[in-house]
Amino acid sequence: MGLDEVAQKPHERLMGWLAADMEAVNLMIRDRMASEHAPRIPQVTAHLVEAGGKRLRPLLTLAAARLCGYAGPYHIHLAATVEFIHTATLLHDDVVDESAQRRGRPTANLLWDNKSSVLVGDYLFARSFQLMTETGSMRVMEILSNASATIAEGEVLQLTAAQDLATTEAIYLQVVRGKTAALFSAATEVGGVIAGADPAQVQALFTYGDALGIAFQIADDLLDYGGTSAAIGKNVGDDFRERKLTLPVIKAVARATPEERAFWTRTIAKGQQVEGDLEQAMAIMARHGAMEAARADANAWAARAREAIATLPDHPIRGMLSDIADYVVSRIN
Amino acid sequence: MGLDEVAQKPHERLMGWLAADMEAVNLMIRDRMASEHAPRIPQVTAHLVEAGGKRLRPLLTLAAARLCGYAGPYHIHLAATVEFIHTATLLHDDVVDESAQRRGRPTANLLWDNKSSVLVGDYLFARSFQLMTETGSMRVMEILSNASATIAEGEVLQLTAAQDLATTEAIYLQVVRGKTAALFSAATEVGGVIAGADPAQVQALFTYGDALGIAFQIADDLLDYGGTSAAIGKNVGDDFRERKLTLPVIKAVARATPEERAFWTRTIAKGQQVEGDLEQAMAIMARHGAMEAARADANAWAARAREAIATLPDHPIRGMLSDIADYVVSRIN
Repeated sequence: MGLDEVAQKPHERLMGWLAADMEAVNLMIRDRMASEHAPRIPQVTAHLVEAGGKRLRPLLTLAAARLCGYAGPYHIHLAATVEFIHTATLLHDDVVDESAQRRGRPTANLLWDNKSSVLVGDYLFARSFQLMTETGSMRVMEILSNASATIAEGEVLQLTAAQDLATTEAIYLQVVRGKTAALFSAATEVGGVIAGADPAQVQALFTYGDALGIAFQIADDLLDYGGTSAAIGKNVGDDFRERKLTLPVIKAVARATPEERAFWTRTIAKGQQVEGDLEQAMAIMARHGAMEAARADANAWAARAREAIATLPDHPIRGMLSDIADYVVSRIN
Repeated sequence: MGLDEVAQKPHERLMGWLAADMEAVNLMIRDRMASEHAPRIPQVTAHLVEAGGKRLRPLLTLAAARLCGYAGPYHIHLAATVEFIHTATLLHDDVVDESAQRRGRPTANLLWDNKSSVLVGDYLFARSFQLMTETGSMRVMEILSNASATIAEGEVLQLTAAQDLATTEAIYLQVVRGKTAALFSAATEVGGVIAGADPAQVQALFTYGDALGIAFQIADDLLDYGGTSAAIGKNVGDDFRERKLTLPVIKAVARATPEERAFWTRTIAKGQQVEGDLEQAMAIMARHGAMEAARADANAWAARAREAIATLPDHPIRGMLSDIADYVVSRIN
């Protein structure tokens, strides 16, 4: 990736456009993650919140609200709410996945312990509900509590579907909606709702967030078999070693010869992996065009995201949201 | 405890008085803990929800609402909400405490795994927010999201104060307010709020729940050094073996001779316990009247709970709530 391209990342342009709003969000996050009584809480949270995440989800909330002409104060609360929910799920995910690294740094469960990650996650989740309560909008509370339930449900489904070669693309999509798209779509939807946008516009924002989240997750799946550790903050082949049924694997399993099926059964279902298995998995996927097919799916979801917002007001923010949908898949194209 | 006394437990009388309401709560709990996509969720939840807990917290919400003359439908939602929050915290507590037994049965983290307990807890927490949203009361949302934050904060504080002999009675009280009293007081307060009770009545209900929760927890601490495994569903001495600074220990540490202090440092701070230490700990506590002093505190909190509701309408439910405050400490008197 050239320097020019780095300088032109669309979410960075959007971040620049919404810099004042985002500064207010960062202040609110720092203020609300404090705890008078338990200093462990801001320690754990700061480790994660200030680790240089892209803040994509709160940015989407701010963008949606501004695109719909919002001039009040509550998009800040909602953006902070969305980031708190995201941070809470990251803390719990790292416990569930027994992760040692996140965003290129050691995880909180490694630096402190699983107990702190579970309880501080709970604290942030409760804080997020306090924050959204301040907006006074029942519709917003409904959307975000529904999203929270969908996220947890998707995570449990992922847990029980793990290492199961019978996982279909439909189940995969349900898991992805839970683990990624539900918070993206809630982030954009509440931005529209707080701005008082009409139902068609709110629906368009929901669809954009949903499709963007799915495109994002499929791209992430692909990068795990082809990115570099520095670029994605995790190691190539992590998903394979953790025996995850990601989209390219699901597609390869569906097209497997009997011999290949035995390979997937041994490496994914039974977890008996030996040196060279990752390379063989990638060769099998290449043979069936599984990566190509997953890439085509990601591109189709990105296109759907762009189309959804085409009906929204003609505004520089709309252009940048559209570019973000392109960018998410540019990493794999 | 004689058979007559068993038959007359005040929370059982209250449960009988509110049987129709409680049946509606149980139906709602069973309905809302379902998950279309992830069958693991109702399995884990049912294991805990149907394990025969006393349902004390939802009962308090129903009682508070009825005592204040409520005739609408939403006390059912709120009672189910409170039980969901409680169940979510139990699931996470058992992970944090690495517990193997709860209510005399193996814990969910033992039967399934820590991952399921973390994620199903998150699901129930999200569900609880969906439920309270349905009441349409912003004040209720505030109270319950504040309580949730206090609960998580108290748990983190307990984690960082664990095994620390410098723990004061003030810190103990903060931890207890978080882990027990915050949900008791929120349970009674929202019952009053949904009934449209005046501010003085709502405050009285809050104070009752707060004091009852503290009395309950101190009694629990005492029982851990004197109850039987069958009566409390856990083993005598668990807290000592887990090196918890419960109230009788804190009082004994404050009055310790240098030799006794060395004993507490070895057994609690350093965790170097040998055969006979539990008996010696109990002998030291007896020598300083630590159990007696903690018992007096519990009785004072129970009295405060009774006094708080003396100003509420003269009604059979008020009498039963008062009797519950007595009963909580009768276990240790």
